[in-house]
Amino acid sequence: MEKVKMILDCDTGHDDAIALMVAARHPQIELLGVTVVAGNQVLEKTLPNTLNVCQHLNINVPVYGGMDRPMVRDQVTAGDVHGKSGLDGPVFDALTRKAEKKHAVNFIIDTLMESDGDITLVPVGPLTNIAMAMRLQPAIVRKIKRIVLMGGAVGLGNTTPAAEFNIYVDPEAAHVVLTSGVPIVMMPLDLTNTALADMKIIERMEAIGNKAGKLFGDIMRFTFKSQAVNGLTAGPVHDVTAVTYLVIPEIYHTQDMYVEVELNRGPSYGRTVCDMNDRFHKTPNVTVGLSLDLDKFWDLVEETLRRHE
Amino acid sequence: MEKVKMILDCDTGHDDAIALMVAARHPQIELLGVTVVAGNQVLEKTLPNTLNVCQHLNINVPVYGGMDRPMVRDQVTAGDVHGKSGLDGPVFDALTRKAEKKHAVNFIIDTLMESDGDITLVPVGPLTNIAMAMRLQPAIVRKIKRIVLMGGAVGLGNTTPAAEFNIYVDPEAAHVVLTSGVPIVMMPLDLTNTALADMKIIERMEAIGNKAGKLFGDIMRFTFKSQAVNGLTAGPVHDVTAVTYLVIPEIYHTQDMYVEVELNRGPSYGRTVCDMNDRFHKTPNVTVGLSLDLDKFWDLVEETLRRHE
Amino acid sequence: MEKVKMILDCDTGHDDAIALMVAARHPQIELLGVTVVAGNQVLEKTLPNTLNVCQHLNINVPVYGGMDRPMVRDQVTAGDVHGKSGLDGPVFDALTRKAEKKHAVNFIIDTLMESDGDITLVPVGPLTNIAMAMRLQPAIVRKIKRIVLMGGAVGLGNTTPAAEFNIYVDPEAAHVVLTSGVPIVMMPLDLTNTALADMKIIERMEAIGNKAGKLFGDIMRFTFKSQAVNGLTAGPVHDVTAVTYLVIPEIYHTQDMYVEVELNRGPSYGRTVCDMNDRFHKTPNVTVGLSLDLDKFWDLVEETLRRHE
Amino acid sequence: MEKVKMILDCDTGHDDAIALMVAARHPQIELLGVTVVAGNQVLEKTLPNTLNVCQHLNINVPVYGGMDRPMVRDQVTAGDVHGKSGLDGPVFDALTRKAEKKHAVNFIIDTLMESDGDITLVPVGPLTNIAMAMRLQPAIVRKIKRIVLMGGAVGLGNTTPAAEFNIYVDPEAAHVVLTSGVPIVMMPLDLTNTALADMKIIERMEAIGNKAGKLFGDIMRFTFKSQAVNGLTAGPVHDVTAVTYLVIPEIYHTQDMYVEVELNRGPSYGRTVCDMNDRFHKTPNVTVGLSLDLDKFWDLVEETLRRHE
Repeated sequence: MEKVKMILDCDTGHDDAIALMVAARHPQIELLGVTVVAGNQVLEKTLPNTLNVCQHLNINVPVYGGMDRPMVRDQVTAGDVHGKSGLDGPVFDALTRKAEKKHAVNFIIDTLMESDGDITLVPVGPLTNIAMAMRLQPAIVRKIKRIVLMGGAVGLGNTTPAAEFNIYVDPEAAHVVLTSGVPIVMMPLDLTNTALADMKIIERMEAIGNKAGKLFGDIMRFTFKSQAVNGLTAGPVHDVTAVTYLVIPEIYHTQDMYVEVELNRGPSYGRTVCDMNDRFHKTPNVTVGLSLDLDKFWDLVEETLRRHE
Repeated sequence: MEKVKMILDCDTGHDDAIALMVAARHPQIELLGVTVVAGNQVLEKTLPNTLNVCQHLNINVPVYGGMDRPMVRDQVTAGDVHGKSGLDGPVFDALTRKAEKKHAVNFIIDTLMESDGDITLVPVGPLTNIAMAMRLQPAIVRKIKRIVLMGGAVGLGNTTPAAEFNIYVDPEAAHVVLTSGVPIVMMPLDLTNTALADMKIIERMEAIGNKAGKLFGDIMRFTFKSQAVNGLTAGPVHDVTAVTYLVIPEIYHTQDMYVEVELNRGPSYGRTVCDMNDRFHKTPNVTVGLSLDLDKFWDLVEETLRRHE
Repeated sequence: MEKVKMILDCDTGHDDAIALMVAARHPQIELLGVTVVAGNQVLEKTLPNTLNVCQHLNINVPVYGGMDRPMVRDQVTAGDVHGKSGLDGPVFDALTRKAEKKHAVNFIIDTLMESDGDITLVPVGPLTNIAMAMRLQPAIVRKIKRIVLMGGAVGLGNTTPAAEFNIYVDPEAAHVVLTSGVPIVMMPLDLTNTALADMKIIERMEAIGNKAGKLFGDIMRFTFKSQAVNGLTAGPVHDVTAVTYLVIPEIYHTQDMYVEVELNRGPSYGRTVCDMNDRFHKTPNVTVGLSLDLDKFWDLVEETLRRHE
Repeated sequence: MEKVKMILDCDTGHDDAIALMVAARHPQIELLGVTVVAGNQVLEKTLPNTLNVCQHLNINVPVYGGMDRPMVRDQVTAGDVHGKSGLDGPVFDALTRKAEKKHAVNFIIDTLMESDGDITLVPVGPLTNIAMAMRLQPAIVRKIKRIVLMGGAVGLGNTTPAAEFNIYVDPEAAHVVLTSGVPIVMMPLDLTNTALADMKIIERMEAIGNKAGKLFGDIMRFTFKSQAVNGLTAGPVHDVTAVTYLVIPEIYHTQDMYVEVELNRGPSYGRTVCDMNDRFHKTPNVTVGLSLDLDKFWDLVEETLRRHE
C-alpha cells in the first residue's frame, strides 16, 4: 500500500504534539513537513514547541514558521488551556533545532505546485496558513488531494458557547477553506471530546517505556487538569483524530453535510453551522466525523508511539 | 399545597395539544386561560386547533387569539412537521366553541396587572404574545412570577442547524423575553427531544380508555411519522415538559446560565447561544433544563389524562 | 378642497412642538389626535411636553401616551440635543391638561379601523407606536392612506455616523413600517438639515406677536445652541417638513427608491440604506424627500403660526 | 526638496491609468514600482492594462502582478463602468512589456523591509495586496511612512448605496489596513466625485499635443459616458486625487476621524462608517479628504502630462 503524503499544520499545543508524534512515525504516512501557526499560543511559542518535540524525539522533518496572527480579526490565544508556554508540562533540553527559512505559506504553495496532486493537508490549528496559501496562489486548490482538519463543533463550542477554538481564532480563514471546493474532512469537538486520555490511557502509553511514551504522559498529565475549564474529566487528544483518519478511516462514522462559518460579529461569530439534517438544502461541502472506534484509535496511537525511540 | 396559577401560551400543534390536556386537568394547576399565537401554523389554524381540543375534552377555560405574525421578521410556519391543519391526525366534531373577544396580549396584560404576582406564564410557541405584552405594558414584568418556556437549543437546532423553531420564528420576541429580568426556565430541544412518545407510550395512553387517551394516540401516531424530518424515530412531546415542570420540578436536572439570542441575520439567526461553561462571564438569566426523569414524567402524563373524560 | 386627516405621532421635542403647532392650525389639515412615543426623551417627559404645548396654545386635540421604549432594542434618548426635559427653553404654566386614557397604539388601531382609509399618519419620532399598531392589528395596513415620516438619512447619520436618531432608536420598528406595503414618504436628515431656523427666521416668527410666535422663538433659540453637536449653525425644524408636505407637496423634490434598514448590530445598525441609484434592483418602497423650496416652506409656517392665539 | 518615494497599487482601470501617468512623471515623485490587483476587472485584464499604459508612454517602472481575488469574500468586478477590458476606450499596440516575476505582495514586503521607512503606499484599488502583505509580514507596518488611498465614502456609496467599490470588493482587507496603526489618508467618493473631467478638461489635456494628452482624452471620453450609472455627467478621475495629495497636500481640506468598515453581511456590508462628528468617541485613525482646489489639481495634472512624450 502506498504511503499517504501529508503536511501537518499545527499550533503546538498539547494534542498537536501527539498528532505530530503519530504523523512522524506511522509507517503508512509520509510527513513532508510541519507548518506552524499562531493559535493555542503566539507563534513565538508554538514554533519552538514544535521544534522541541522534533528535537526531543529526533523527528527529522522540516519545520516552517507561518502566520503569526489571523487573516482579519484580532488575535486570540488559549493560555488558559495550554499554559504559559503553550505546551506546559514536559521539560525539554535546550533547543538547537531550527525552523527552515522559508515561510510556511510559501512551503505549502511550492510543495503543492510541484506535486502530482497527491498531498493531504492536515491542519489541526486555526486555518490561517492554509487560507493564506489558497489566496496567494489559488492554483493550489486543484492540487490538494484532501484536507483533513480538526476544528468546529456541531453542538456546543469550547471558546464561546457557539464556536470551537480553531475556527473562532480565524473564522475568515475557515470560510476561505470551507468554500474552496477542496474535499474536506472535519473532526469537530463533538467527536474529539470523546478521544480522552484518561489515567488508564496515560499509564498505558507510559508503559511503552520509550521517550515518546514518557512525553505522551508528561503532556497529557498536564491537560488532564487544565481541561476542567471545558467540563472534561480527562484530556482530549483532539488533533490526533485528524491524523489517524488518514490511515484508518474505516473506524470513523462520518456524514457529508453543508457547513458554513458564521462571519457576522455577534454572539455566534465563528460558529460552524453544520447542516446535519439538510435544512438549508445546500450541497454538502464537508465530511464531518461523528464518532470513532476508540479502542482501535488508541491501539494505533500506542503502536505508533512504540516506533519512536 | 397551593395550586400553581398559569397561563398557557401555545400554537397548537401536536405537542401543544397534549400540554393543554395536562395543564387543564392536573389537580395542582389552575389554568387561568389559554392564549394562542401563530407558529406551527398560521393563527387561523392554531386558534381553531386549540378550541377543538377544548371542545373535544370539555375543557372550560377561556381561549384568546393573539399575534398572527412575528414582531419584526417575516413569517415562518412548520407545515412539514404538523401537517396542513397544524394538527393533522385527529378528527374533531364541527367546532362550536368560540374564542374570547379580547386579544391575547391584552388578556395577558390585564390578568397580570390584576394579579398578586403569583402567575406563571408557560409559552410553548414563539414568544410573540409575551414580548408584545411586555412592551405594551412594561409594568407586567414585575408581576410575572416566572416564565417556563419550551424553546431554544443548546446543541443543534431543528429549523436551521443553528436555531430551534419557536425561537427562529420570532428571535426578536425571544430577545425581549430573555432580557426582561423575569425568572425564566427554558426547556430546550436537547431535553425535549428525549421525551419521545414511542409506540409503547402511545399504547399505554390509549389503554386508559377515555377520550383524552384516544386523542393522545391520534395525535402522537401522526407525529410518529412526521418527526422523521428531525431524525427522530418517535414523536417528542416538547411542550408538555414545560407544563409538568410546574408541578414536579424535582425530576428535572437544570443549570443556570447566560443565554443570548443571535439577532444578526446570517446562518445563526435565531440561535439561543447557551453559555453552559460561562465563556462570556455574564450573569445567568435562564435556568436551562438538561434532562428529566422520563419514567416519572410519563407517569404524571398518564395520571393527568386519566382525570379527563 | 378637502382637508387632509392626519394623526401626528411625536416625541416632543423641539421641532416636534413646532410640527404640532403647524398641524393643529393649518386650515387644510384635520388633526385627529396626537400620539406620543419615547424618543428625544423618556415618555414621562415627551408626554407632558406635548400636553404643555397644547395647553399653552389652547390646542384642543386628544393626546395619547404610547410606547415608552423600543420594540426590541435597549432604550436610547437624546438629552444632549433636547435638554433634560426634552423641551428645554420655553417656560410653561403648571400643567392641567391630561392625556387620554387610551393607549396611543389602540387609538391608532381604532381610529384607522373605523375610518374610510383616508387617514395619513405623520410619525416624527421613533416608529414604535406605528409598528406596534401594525403588528397588533395587521388589518390597519390597508386602512392607512399614507405615512409621511421624518427619519433616516441618505448620507451621514446624526446619532451614529451611519444612523439618524429616529431610526436608530428603534430600527426594528422602522423595518416593520418600511416593509409594510403602505405608501411612505420619508423626510431624511439630508433634507431636514436644510430647514434651519436661523436668527432671521426666529425674529420673523417672533414678530408675529402672538403666543405661537413667541413659543417658536423660545424653542428655536434653545436649539440654536444645542445643534452645534450636529455641526449645524442654526436649529433645524426636521419634523415640520413632514407636516407641511401634506399640504404643499409641490415644493418638495422627491425620488422613489428602495430603502432598507440595517438590522445587523455592527457599526451600521439602524442605517436607512437608501438605494438612490438602484444598485439592488429592488422595487421602490419609499418616496424620499431630497430638497424643498425653503422660502415657501417658511411662508407656510409663518401663515400657520399667525392663526394661533 | 526630496522626492516622495511611493509604490502605486492599482486595478487599471481608467482613472488608475491617469494616476499612473501622474505618478510616473511628476518631478517630486519617485515611483518605485507598480503593483496590480483584481478590482475593476479580473487580474488577467488589470495587469495587461497597466503594462499597456507603461509601454505606450514608455514608463520604465517595474510592474508586479498581485492578488487575483479578495482575501475572504467572493469576487466582484465593475465591468459596467470600465468595460469588458477594464480599460475600454484607448487602443494600444501589441503588448510586449512584461510584468516582473515576483508577486506584488512579496515586492511590497521586500521593498519596505529594505527601506528606511520613507516609502508611501498609494493604493487606488481594493486593498487586498496591502492587507495580505501586512499579514504575511507584520513587520512592514512600522516601515510604511503613510498610506494615501482612494476608497470609501462618507455619504452614499457607488456599488451599493452603502459601500464604495474599492472597499466593497474587499471589506476584510480594508479592515486590516484601517486597523493597522499606519497613518492613513483616504480620498472618499465624496471628494473624488468632484474631480470630474468634463469636455473642457478633456480638450485641454488633448491640446497638450503629446501621447499622454491623447491617452487622457481616449480614456476619459469613454468614462464620460459610462459614469452615467453613477448619476454623473462627466468622468471622475478618483484615483488621481490620491497621487496628487503626495505633492500638493495643501490644496486639500481634510479632517481626522475614526473610520470603521462594516463587516456584517447585511445591506451595509463594506461601508466605511466615517465618524465625522465623533459620535463613537474613538481615536481618529484616518485623515479623510473632504474637498480640494480643483483648479490647482487640474493645473498639476496638465503640467505632469506635459512631461510625457
